[in-house]
Amino acid sequence: MDLKQVAMDKHYKWKGKLEIVSRTPVTNSEQLSIAYTPGVAEPCLAIQKDYNKSFELTRRWNMVLVVTDGTAVLGLGDIGPEAGMPVMEGKCCLFKEFGGVDAFPLCVRSKDVDELVRTIYLISGSFGGINLEDIAAPRCFEIERRLKQLCDIPVFHDDQHGTAVVTGAAVLNALKVVGKEIGNARCVINGAGSAGIAIADHLLKMGVNNIILCDSSGIISEGDSRLNQPKAEMSTRTNRSHLTGSLADAMKGTDIFIGVSVPGIVSEDMVKSMSEKPIILPMSNPNPEIYPELAIKAGAAVVGTGRSDFPNQINNVLAFPGIFRGSLDVRASDINQEMQLAASYAIASLISDDELGKAESPEYNTALKYNMKNFPPFEFLSDLEIQRGIGYCRKEKRIFHGLF
Amino acid sequence: MDLKQVAMDKHYKWKGKLEIVSRTPVTNSEQLSIAYTPGVAEPCLAIQKDYNKSFELTRRWNMVLVVTDGTAVLGLGDIGPEAGMPVMEGKCCLFKEFGGVDAFPLCVRSKDVDELVRTIYLISGSFGGINLEDIAAPRCFEIERRLKQLCDIPVFHDDQHGTAVVTGAAVLNALKVVGKEIGNARCVINGAGSAGIAIADHLLKMGVNNIILCDSSGIISEGDSRLNQPKAEMSTRTNRSHLTGSLADAMKGTDIFIGVSVPGIVSEDMVKSMSEKPIILPMSNPNPEIYPELAIKAGAAVVGTGRSDFPNQINNVLAFPGIFRGSLDVRASDINQEMQLAASYAIASLISDDELGKAESPEYNTALKYNMKNFPPFEFLSDLEIQRGIGYCRKEKRIFHGLF
Repeated sequence: MDLKQVAMDKHYKWKGKLEIVSRTPVTNSEQLSIAYTPGVAEPCLAIQKDYNKSFELTRRWNMVLVVTDGTAVLGLGDIGPEAGMPVMEGKCCLFKEFGGVDAFPLCVRSKDVDELVRTIYLISGSFGGINLEDIAAPRCFEIERRLKQLCDIPVFHDDQHGTAVVTGAAVLNALKVVGKEIGNARCVINGAGSAGIAIADHLLKMGVNNIILCDSSGIISEGDSRLNQPKAEMSTRTNRSHLTGSLADAMKGTDIFIGVSVPGIVSEDMVKSMSEKPIILPMSNPNPEIYPELAIKAGAAVVGTGRSDFPNQINNVLAFPGIFRGSLDVRASDINQEMQLAASYAIASLISDDELGKAESPEYNTALKYNMKNFPPFEFLSDLEIQRGIGYCRKEKRIFHGLF
Repeated sequence: MDLKQVAMDKHYKWKGKLEIVSRTPVTNSEQLSIAYTPGVAEPCLAIQKDYNKSFELTRRWNMVLVVTDGTAVLGLGDIGPEAGMPVMEGKCCLFKEFGGVDAFPLCVRSKDVDELVRTIYLISGSFGGINLEDIAAPRCFEIERRLKQLCDIPVFHDDQHGTAVVTGAAVLNALKVVGKEIGNARCVINGAGSAGIAIADHLLKMGVNNIILCDSSGIISEGDSRLNQPKAEMSTRTNRSHLTGSLADAMKGTDIFIGVSVPGIVSEDMVKSMSEKPIILPMSNPNPEIYPELAIKAGAAVVGTGRSDFPNQINNVLAFPGIFRGSLDVRASDINQEMQLAASYAIASLISDDELGKAESPEYNTALKYNMKNFPPFEFLSDLEIQRGIGYCRKEKRIFHGLF
């Protein structure tokens, strides 16, 4: 039986991949008088008196909202809110499995930025964090920005920042494998949606100074009037030599290719046109911009894709469960750029310098130690985030921004 | 240790009374490729093609939203959305324990009717039913009415209808105990908030023709300009002899007293002024309108309160888990009046005529067989609701209102 059929059969059998269970029995009068009326009035009054107690007396402290409008689900595009829910449920399973986080899936029947922001804000008092999921660009940027301002809990768009964190870790280690300096490395990112923009921003903050960002029309250059706002902003921070042209033009002589775009767009010749020991990270899913075997044939020194059935996967699951685990543990008010950078360095550091580049093939010449078969213990990221996030700890104050 | 302290200690220990768990392991690459990418694309596309599949391929079929604005929490009043969450969590535990229903607690940071309606509607595609909880009157009536129009899943305000269903069952059996006909019985309801209005409406539909509704100003009479809209509407359906005066005036010569108001407002003399074998249901919580021992001393033939530590409790838990269980099982689009009436008769029928009125004291001369220690099996209500709700079944059609 093929995977598609198995997936359908299993989903019919599961009847939902999540379930809500009680943490306390409520089967007799005594139990109910404590968990429900009249005893429950006491924690209610305690929270009324001190809002912060909602993080101690209800599940909020460990509860993340996984929310979509259904407009950019997987590679399927705008399939509608309810149709996005199997993915949201799956994401929540990952949150629990790899981060110990209770996550609840929700779809919102609106594509209006104001309405999405308002709806999510209004229910945010029920949660300890918000994970935006599969919301189309460029709307997702505005929604995230405004929710971060409104909410007193972390707001994180995993398609942007989770991808950027793990890609950043891969780039750090891949550069070590090929013996190149991050400050001198030249990088092409193909795809300027939510992931591409976020990766560019993240790599710039990591010290990759020379980035060329491409979209379906080619190289993004400053002053191009066709660019939307996020692309226009990025055009002033990338491509400082003001190149124009195609993806093929952009790739000539560069050290790193990162793909978050469409299948098959990179040829062997394009890889051959890069500098020596090129790093090829074609992450389009399920079919990459170039298949690893072709990239290796063309001279790639390190290859990593977005596929879980290939080695060296660049996988968000390496990042988001631990980032949220740490943020919830310290009751961070935000997951900011510094915390995201720290996460990249932490994930990269899980493989020692001795181990790097020892594999028999670029496909296994791994930039990331852990893949689907071998996840980092989330306690690791948690510890790190506790350290980094302490400035955001609000155990004393309700909102305590800005220590970083 | 007193109950209040125990409740606080337990809530600190529980750190939330609910938890979200996976129904499938996601620990290796193969499992993930089925529960998450790439396999999950198949159920997504199936739902995109046929919206109804969202009730088969995600947890929606069994998931109820328990939502509050925090304005009428227990007897505590407007304590705010986050402070209402311990009650919402407890309610969700009851849903699971007694109905097998997955219920998720949510608070909304708004008191605006339009905003509450819009917010709940926009997220309704994630659920199979909506339980409105602890929303203040008269706003709750408008919110429920509009959500029932907008949503294609059942919307139920338990404070109104759950209370009315169980009170209706109690009245049915209590009248049997004292040997009175429902059509001739005279009934006083004290309290004209969400519960009082709903009980009046429900009893009228059950055939209690002679009802007098009182609020804190006394008897509600047609034409009184101080009445809000729900009270004004009820003034045209109750008190057809156009009485005016106090609660004490209303109670003279009546057969049934129902209290959903404030503690201690009913005296022994008021009970003595009723007709022979009066039925006294003082349900104010935690302290009733009159304590059972005083009511019995004054001649009450049947007494039932809202307290779980007294015998003969009139408890919503007898109704809402089974009503939702049945509604979800048939994918009802509504929980309408007919279904609610059916539930009252079903709960009443759980005690045989032989058993009725055999107890040694009116306090135990039970109108309801089951109390906190002995719940009806929810399968019973489920079966009944399947029967009654079949006209609402949408297994074939998305929206199929109006067969009743």
